[in-house]
Amino acid sequence: MKREELVNNIQRKGSFLCVGLDPDIKKIPAHLLEGENPLYEFCRQIVDATAPYCVAYKPNLAFFESLVADGLRQLEMTVKHIRENHPDQFVIADAKRGDIGNTSALYARAAFEHMGVDAITVAPYMGEDSVKPFLGYEGKWVVLLALTSNPGSKDFQLLPVNAEGRRLFEEVILKSSEWAGPEEMMYVVGATQGRMFEDIRRVAPKSFLLVPGVGAQGGSLEEVCRYGMLPDGECGLLVNSSRGIIYASTGLDFAAAAGEAARTLAAQMATLL
Amino acid sequence: MKREELVNNIQRKGSFLCVGLDPDIKKIPAHLLEGENPLYEFCRQIVDATAPYCVAYKPNLAFFESLVADGLRQLEMTVKHIRENHPDQFVIADAKRGDIGNTSALYARAAFEHMGVDAITVAPYMGEDSVKPFLGYEGKWVVLLALTSNPGSKDFQLLPVNAEGRRLFEEVILKSSEWAGPEEMMYVVGATQGRMFEDIRRVAPKSFLLVPGVGAQGGSLEEVCRYGMLPDGECGLLVNSSRGIIYASTGLDFAAAAGEAARTLAAQMATLL
Repeated sequence: MKREELVNNIQRKGSFLCVGLDPDIKKIPAHLLEGENPLYEFCRQIVDATAPYCVAYKPNLAFFESLVADGLRQLEMTVKHIRENHPDQFVIADAKRGDIGNTSALYARAAFEHMGVDAITVAPYMGEDSVKPFLGYEGKWVVLLALTSNPGSKDFQLLPVNAEGRRLFEEVILKSSEWAGPEEMMYVVGATQGRMFEDIRRVAPKSFLLVPGVGAQGGSLEEVCRYGMLPDGECGLLVNSSRGIIYASTGLDFAAAAGEAARTLAAQMATLL
Repeated sequence: MKREELVNNIQRKGSFLCVGLDPDIKKIPAHLLEGENPLYEFCRQIVDATAPYCVAYKPNLAFFESLVADGLRQLEMTVKHIRENHPDQFVIADAKRGDIGNTSALYARAAFEHMGVDAITVAPYMGEDSVKPFLGYEGKWVVLLALTSNPGSKDFQLLPVNAEGRRLFEEVILKSSEWAGPEEMMYVVGATQGRMFEDIRRVAPKSFLLVPGVGAQGGSLEEVCRYGMLPDGECGLLVNSSRGIIYASTGLDFAAAAGEAARTLAAQMATLL
């Protein structure tokens, strides 16, 4: 999906919500475990209930890979369901991959050619040749980790890397900007970072940001928008919520509850756009 | 596998060779493509031919995941084959994973409980809570990326992160040493880094190092041993070769050629031990 189409979807729906699909076999409603494809069935119902209120889905591969081959099969089914029934949704494989060049090329092939997602999250530690194989696919995106939402983000991402006090996450954004423009690269910036969005916008003035950490992790939607939103309807944010939506209820009404939670969050977003 | 057992295997076999299992569907011998499980069949024959000359196998998940669910199924078959037929081999899932705590916990479960490998490579960018869920499994290991073998290693890993000129890869080793000792954490250090092994040993004096980059990537085995090997028979190195062994021939004799390439490398290792 091209940037223009993503921006159009955001404006049309009045939402920049991304729903994180983290189907934990230990948390999904018990009645689904009787079927053959519980992760898929859980995701399918969540997707159908939330699609009117979001513009993107972010399946996290860890939750599918926890069942190894059987889980990846259900991930493929999930992506296919979204593609066929909700073609206006932007699909991000949350994989945090990154390896030497020839190996990253295989991860790219799996994500973009086999699974058919629009974007994949990539870890920057191994540098340019670990990221570049994900670039150059028409309409596909790299979502590079910059400043993450977890406590450990302070361990390395905030270290100063030059005499002027530039920090590692800023260096990651500046250097990777030489590899790809804001038409095919986004950055992960955790909602828990608040005012840091001002610093982010200094080094990434036009890029879309994928923002996890609203809800269960404690980030504030208002703060993210105040400091991170782009002007002129460009938005430049995809705010992700996972647990707050998909586990809104763990009973028979889980899908309806997820739809309601997504609707509520989207309504807040509409007022902020 | 505990460290003592790994060291014993190295001494007994006179080898610290790790064979990298990178089964590229576009490179494996054509006659295997007619069967149902070409990646597994390729790996199985490579393993059976090379097992006398190595102490470890490192399947890279990217090569299996390039076929998505079908590939992961063949990875499970490969690990099972090694476990059942070559129980003295140390198996490293080369996955370079790392995510927020609850998600890393799922990757750990997949690797250690479902697949049953001994170790998994982990990327450090997201810090402590992204690494810790992989720790604390009896006899299991984290292999943390420190200084990788690829050109992009210079982009971020070599940046100075404090006034004394400590570099990011050194900070990664020092900080992660607070999370786990050399009984359950190793580091990835590329063979292409030569003299840098002296610097590595200053911050990781007792740790095992997983060393890719000998062979196709140009690293020197002698240099790695001169600057990186631990004294007193502890060795402290697992030197990986992938392409140089598994693609020694792409004909019907591929397994025998791989065995011969492993035997040659192991013979060099025996003189260096």
